[in-house]
Amino acid sequence: MNQEYPSALLEKAVKEFSKLPGIGRKTATRLVLHLLRKDDEEVTSFADSLTTLKREARYCNECLSISDTEICPICANPLRDHSIICVVENIQDVMAVENTMQYRGVYHVLGGVISPMDGVSPGDLNIGSLVNRVAAGDVKEVILALSSTMEGDTTNFYIYRKLSQYNVKLSVIARGISIGDELEYADEVTLGSSIVNRQPFNGKTI
Amino acid sequence: MNQEYPSALLEKAVKEFSKLPGIGRKTATRLVLHLLRKDDEEVTSFADSLTTLKREARYCNECLSISDTEICPICANPLRDHSIICVVENIQDVMAVENTMQYRGVYHVLGGVISPMDGVSPGDLNIGSLVNRVAAGDVKEVILALSSTMEGDTTNFYIYRKLSQYNVKLSVIARGISIGDELEYADEVTLGSSIVNRQPFNGKTI
Repeated sequence: MNQEYPSALLEKAVKEFSKLPGIGRKTATRLVLHLLRKDDEEVTSFADSLTTLKREARYCNECLSISDTEICPICANPLRDHSIICVVENIQDVMAVENTMQYRGVYHVLGGVISPMDGVSPGDLNIGSLVNRVAAGDVKEVILALSSTMEGDTTNFYIYRKLSQYNVKLSVIARGISIGDELEYADEVTLGSSIVNRQPFNGKTI
Repeated sequence: MNQEYPSALLEKAVKEFSKLPGIGRKTATRLVLHLLRKDDEEVTSFADSLTTLKREARYCNECLSISDTEICPICANPLRDHSIICVVENIQDVMAVENTMQYRGVYHVLGGVISPMDGVSPGDLNIGSLVNRVAAGDVKEVILALSSTMEGDTTNFYIYRKLSQYNVKLSVIARGISIGDELEYADEVTLGSSIVNRQPFNGKTI
């Protein structure tokens, strides 16, 4: 839609909003006009929350996740198991794993996966700092929790090679049929992999 | 999803973003983390575009659409037909009608429709200023282009009553089957209305 904006200020704000992923011009217009109807304080509070975050956000010295402090609350927590590191692509993935409430170890945020197509090489990722953490010696297990894609697999293999000289257990999260899914609708690669990686069954639902 | 945010600053920004219509917590997190990866200047430019718009946006003295000046470019344009006023709910609708390139008159932005359920009474809308424009005497036609809902119909009727004492032609935009739609999928009220309001056919596609 080629829209003639009645206001250059409006057009500028819509343009900025449209730069966000998944936000088209029409949605951007709706969001901006929504903010325009709000009080001055609400718009200022919205804008300030972003500039403050950008200005003051730190990254945890240990796991490189976002943090308000030098060490993030997870790495600073003595009740977490610091001998297990879960390697994830980004901060959202840390939150996703935390939400499962199934993990009590710590994390390492790579900042992406190796992807020659997108120009992401191993040097662009936080792999060196992961190796350093493992080399320090207190780590017993590294769990690779990357996307189940070619890029994720490549990154898994790269990390495997980098860590092979250390005495650390390396594991990868299970891939298989999603809970609640019907076999009939599962893709054959996943289904095949879930048969090859079948697990002992003791009569209880997992 | 009940997310534990690793950073209070991040949580605050996500909370602000989630207040926008149609933006849930998950999308808000994605958008905020996207902005976080951008340069300082880009984030500042994004935030500033909103506060500047909010601080400096004016509303056209004539049609009450958003404008950078006292009179908006449409109302200020001598080539537009100032004797026809198209009444719309909001600024988006002005842009939608403009995009059709079928209208050379001017507009009047009501700021909503009468909706007792949402607490919107006629006094909350820019109806008085519409009556004043008509009362001034140079207006020949008022086109009602409101939503085809009960609230839109109520507002149409309210405006009809308010303008009935003036010598002005009142019309409403045509309702019928959308162009490209199949009859089979049209709702029966629209289909019924499109039969009742059938138009003379001269052999040309409309």
